[in-house]
Amino acid sequence: MNRFLNVVGVADAVRESVKIAPATETETVPVEQSAGRALAAGIEADTDIPGFDRSVVDGYAVRSADTTGAGDALPALLPCVGRVAMGTSDRKLVVQDNECVYIPTGGVLPEGADAVVMVEYTDEAGDIILIKKPVSHGENVLLRDEDFKKGGIVLRPGRRLTPQDAGVLAACGCAMVTVAKKPVVGIISTGNELVPVTAIPGPGQVRDANASMLAAWLSEYGCIPRLYGIVKDEREAFEAIIFKALPECDVVLLSGGSSKDDRDITAGVIAGRGEVLVHGIAIAPGKPTIIGRIEGKPVFGLPGHPASAFVVLIAIVRPLLDRMLGLEKPLIRTVKANLEENIPSQRGREEYVRVRVENGKAIPQFGKSGLLNTLVSSDGLVCIPAGYEGLEKGREVEVILW
Amino acid sequence: MNRFLNVVGVADAVRESVKIAPATETETVPVEQSAGRALAAGIEADTDIPGFDRSVVDGYAVRSADTTGAGDALPALLPCVGRVAMGTSDRKLVVQDNECVYIPTGGVLPEGADAVVMVEYTDEAGDIILIKKPVSHGENVLLRDEDFKKGGIVLRPGRRLTPQDAGVLAACGCAMVTVAKKPVVGIISTGNELVPVTAIPGPGQVRDANASMLAAWLSEYGCIPRLYGIVKDEREAFEAIIFKALPECDVVLLSGGSSKDDRDITAGVIAGRGEVLVHGIAIAPGKPTIIGRIEGKPVFGLPGHPASAFVVLIAIVRPLLDRMLGLEKPLIRTVKANLEENIPSQRGREEYVRVRVENGKAIPQFGKSGLLNTLVSSDGLVCIPAGYEGLEKGREVEVILW
Repeated sequence: MNRFLNVVGVADAVRESVKIAPATETETVPVEQSAGRALAAGIEADTDIPGFDRSVVDGYAVRSADTTGAGDALPALLPCVGRVAMGTSDRKLVVQDNECVYIPTGGVLPEGADAVVMVEYTDEAGDIILIKKPVSHGENVLLRDEDFKKGGIVLRPGRRLTPQDAGVLAACGCAMVTVAKKPVVGIISTGNELVPVTAIPGPGQVRDANASMLAAWLSEYGCIPRLYGIVKDEREAFEAIIFKALPECDVVLLSGGSSKDDRDITAGVIAGRGEVLVHGIAIAPGKPTIIGRIEGKPVFGLPGHPASAFVVLIAIVRPLLDRMLGLEKPLIRTVKANLEENIPSQRGREEYVRVRVENGKAIPQFGKSGLLNTLVSSDGLVCIPAGYEGLEKGREVEVILW
Repeated sequence: MNRFLNVVGVADAVRESVKIAPATETETVPVEQSAGRALAAGIEADTDIPGFDRSVVDGYAVRSADTTGAGDALPALLPCVGRVAMGTSDRKLVVQDNECVYIPTGGVLPEGADAVVMVEYTDEAGDIILIKKPVSHGENVLLRDEDFKKGGIVLRPGRRLTPQDAGVLAACGCAMVTVAKKPVVGIISTGNELVPVTAIPGPGQVRDANASMLAAWLSEYGCIPRLYGIVKDEREAFEAIIFKALPECDVVLLSGGSSKDDRDITAGVIAGRGEVLVHGIAIAPGKPTIIGRIEGKPVFGLPGHPASAFVVLIAIVRPLLDRMLGLEKPLIRTVKANLEENIPSQRGREEYVRVRVENGKAIPQFGKSGLLNTLVSSDGLVCIPAGYEGLEKGREVEVILW
């Protein structure tokens, strides 16, 4: 094992990460539970939507020509010859010249009519309706297939479904929808200094915060985290738990172990039973990251510091998950803001600085990558590309929001 | 029942909506599943975090004074007198003047040392370590309680927990955390024109898209939707399903029924068995909305058009859900953008226009509120306040993102 890492750039690391993504699997879920999921196959309208010319207001179906010139002072007087009932189509209900028919919102426009006058612009005088405002051809009518045409493409594959999309799917007759399956991501915590969350840390010990953080992020991002607890830095125990996790998971994260010994064991186990593709990335924080593969499954060795692990999760692991999640674009939300302070950076590595966003300003939250409090006090990350020696105060930056 | 609605402003409607919010209930969930939930009670650190002075790098613990002036040409030569083991504290391991001790990342800083030199700036010559860069007091060390002090407030109640917060909670010994319970929201679809998603619509019929849309949104927003299917516009059947839903839900949404008859039945049932607080809101789309209460539970009559129902859900129902979800601020995400076109609006009502956001531009997606396709092609809503007669092209607006 080399004493120093053979560091690769972020773009190369991401390429390696995405390259080993297992193929996206699909599953079928109820449409009400589909929001946030990636659509696996395109959806076409199975019928015209709507399937008939529909009134979009409560009012009177008319021939628009009969309302020309109508006003408060001189309303058009049209006898009401019927009422449209909801949910049926009455072929015998016809609007002739100088007649009207009452129509509720959503009702089928009767034959002969070409527009609807809102009830607010009418008055009743017995069976005669006083129309006090003219309407034009098609006014207040949703035409057959105006929303979607039968056979037309409604939603494209890879789209992350919104709640409104769920409505569209329902309108297209999809009670169930095929989406990308949630990847199962195993989390194995390593490090002799780690104790479980429920333990009181003894001298030199810390609670395993990273596993909970990673699991919570993965859940929110649409994956299924699976926690395998803490293994001590003994190669046999380590291998045993990895080989327990591999068949149960699509991806395995080894949540370090911040020390070099831990990282060496991690790299040794991956190299011994699979292959190490990347060991060391030009990213700060997060340099001592490992990307590997065992039995065809991606295995990441994450750095031990919480902030480092989190940055690597977002910058390096996420693109692989995006691929597995079948997403056409990442779920990451960004916001533009202006830097409130200079951020120094080292040329040659991509640097991620935590920032708080306030009134359009990005306020750097500098701090050691071992700290959790800067993660909590910040709203997101600003990336300083490898070619820069820092960014200047006032510069507009894109903040990757948590 | 009045023929015309007695319209109130949006702010008043929201006030009525929030006023009838049932008290927030709490539940305890595993910390890994807590992201997105609102913290019910403040969290304090149960120990200092970290509980000891910790190295943040792999290197050599030293007395910083011994490194003064060290460089490549003239390194400080310090005999290495021991190694720090991870996860324990060795009281006998002491760094004296002109000595050093190997320390891995995360190790306990040994007595006598006040800084750590990164291994990258050292060389070995047998037992002698060549220190080629000076360090200052405290350098590369995370001090005891630097992250959080025992008894200090770590997270405040009402905070929507992030994945990083889950890490902090774990560090504070919380394997389980008490959060606001997810409100159960019943959805009853009404309207003689509606048929289930799985049916082929006959003449005059449409599939019930709104229920799926509402349920998907509610799930994503952290509620538990419960679907009660479609009831026809018959008062008895309607009442029966409402009284089935009320004991099972915290809030009930009546998903209209776009016609005036439907709305009248809805208002009649609420008024007959409870109270109607608001009937008609100065909002577009969404005017014919009902806010009521039956047996102490909020009951909303939503408009029938998908876009109208969605706007009312976000503008009027959401603030009530925020209260029940225990959130200190809404989950709504916004982005600033410049209007690509003029948006006309009617003074006296709050108007919501769907927009697509592209390269910092908000492009209005005009269309009848009966359309689903404008909801799908848009990324969010722009609100035009009641006091405006539209907004001009180029103006910076805040887009409420889906």
